[in-house]
Amino acid sequence: MMLNGFYKRLLPSPPAIDFVSNNGKKLFLEAYQNGTMQGFNSLISHFQTQTELTYCGLTSLTMVLNSLAIDPGRKWKGPWRWFDESMLDYCGPLETVRANGISFEKLASLGHCAGAKVEAFRASNITIDDFRKYVTKCSTTDDCHIIASYHRAALKQTAGGHYSPIGGYHAGKDMVLILDVARFKYPPHWVPLSLIWEGMNYIVGSTGKTRGFLLVSRPHKEPNMLK
Amino acid sequence: MMLNGFYKRLLPSPPAIDFVSNNGKKLFLEAYQNGTMQGFNSLISHFQTQTELTYCGLTSLTMVLNSLAIDPGRKWKGPWRWFDESMLDYCGPLETVRANGISFEKLASLGHCAGAKVEAFRASNITIDDFRKYVTKCSTTDDCHIIASYHRAALKQTAGGHYSPIGGYHAGKDMVLILDVARFKYPPHWVPLSLIWEGMNYIVGSTGKTRGFLLVSRPHKEPNMLK
Repeated sequence: MMLNGFYKRLLPSPPAIDFVSNNGKKLFLEAYQNGTMQGFNSLISHFQTQTELTYCGLTSLTMVLNSLAIDPGRKWKGPWRWFDESMLDYCGPLETVRANGISFEKLASLGHCAGAKVEAFRASNITIDDFRKYVTKCSTTDDCHIIASYHRAALKQTAGGHYSPIGGYHAGKDMVLILDVARFKYPPHWVPLSLIWEGMNYIVGSTGKTRGFLLVSRPHKEPNMLK
Repeated sequence: MMLNGFYKRLLPSPPAIDFVSNNGKKLFLEAYQNGTMQGFNSLISHFQTQTELTYCGLTSLTMVLNSLAIDPGRKWKGPWRWFDESMLDYCGPLETVRANGISFEKLASLGHCAGAKVEAFRASNITIDDFRKYVTKCSTTDDCHIIASYHRAALKQTAGGHYSPIGGYHAGKDMVLILDVARFKYPPHWVPLSLIWEGMNYIVGSTGKTRGFLLVSRPHKEPNMLK
């Protein structure tokens, strides 16, 4: 019997290493022992699948907001306050996102409106060493998380621009763990930091600007909405 | 400003140890090094929040089906075949589950219809040593996962009956990692195996029967629907 559609895609490997493979587990244990997976437990506890094929940005942000224990200040279901993609409508209805995805600037704004501190870095404005410094910072503490905005072509993956959080760092191999929110397609995977950096340097066609990453952390003050 | 509802609940600890705490990370690393977290990577890669407050059974099963890479044989969204709670309607529309949750037998049947091999164990029919044997088996391989059906009171947690998958085992401390699908309420947590066993021994009021656990694995043959 022929089945329609796809059951996942084969992860191009190299350059990626499947998190669930023996090699991926070995890298994970080494990185964990080395203290560069400090943000992993909180982030993986909130790992989720993008609920719409255009929601990779919203899903990545939702994961990070819940990981940072930011209170949305309103209810999700029943009595529970909790972030879900459907609640990220601070900048207007989500119909546009559903149709076209979301821009780098708008995602940063959404994170800010939701109560997080968001620093946005275009790859064109910094160096790979800066990027590595931020990856190291967020992988050795629970206080911040990085959402990468990159083009999948740098990783030999199908489709184009994508967002996903970075779940940890292996300093010895200089590799990052991508928690790909398109979980129906690719498992979490390790990739060379230099390649995700290359993917962040792809130009977003319509804008002439590169992609980059968002550094998201808890604000020192109360979220805007709670003032 | 007073906010309505709850932002999570304080995890009663003891008896539980928060997975995201320093102590929880220490237990995790020890168990991982000891080889009793072999199913963790696949299961955590599919960790999700129950999308309805009565869906803990469906969500636990969805996680396990996706972790075992069982192909649903039909599309979820776009071209992608992937399990989601909404697709577990083999035994009829999900309205009843939304209203009342799902029974132990029906959840086992759903897993079977979805293409998995499901063995259901009532706590009254086996011993704690049998349970530990199955936990050990599924934590030292990627081939099976356990869904616990228990009463939260044994863990001093609020609310009643609940389902969640077991994410790994710490043999030295005899503790299991509960990947609680009510993520808006409690983080993943370690608990003594003896206490989750106690929770599985609570009677389901309406039936006079105890709770227990489902041992879910890939079938040796093709799933029913693909014959």
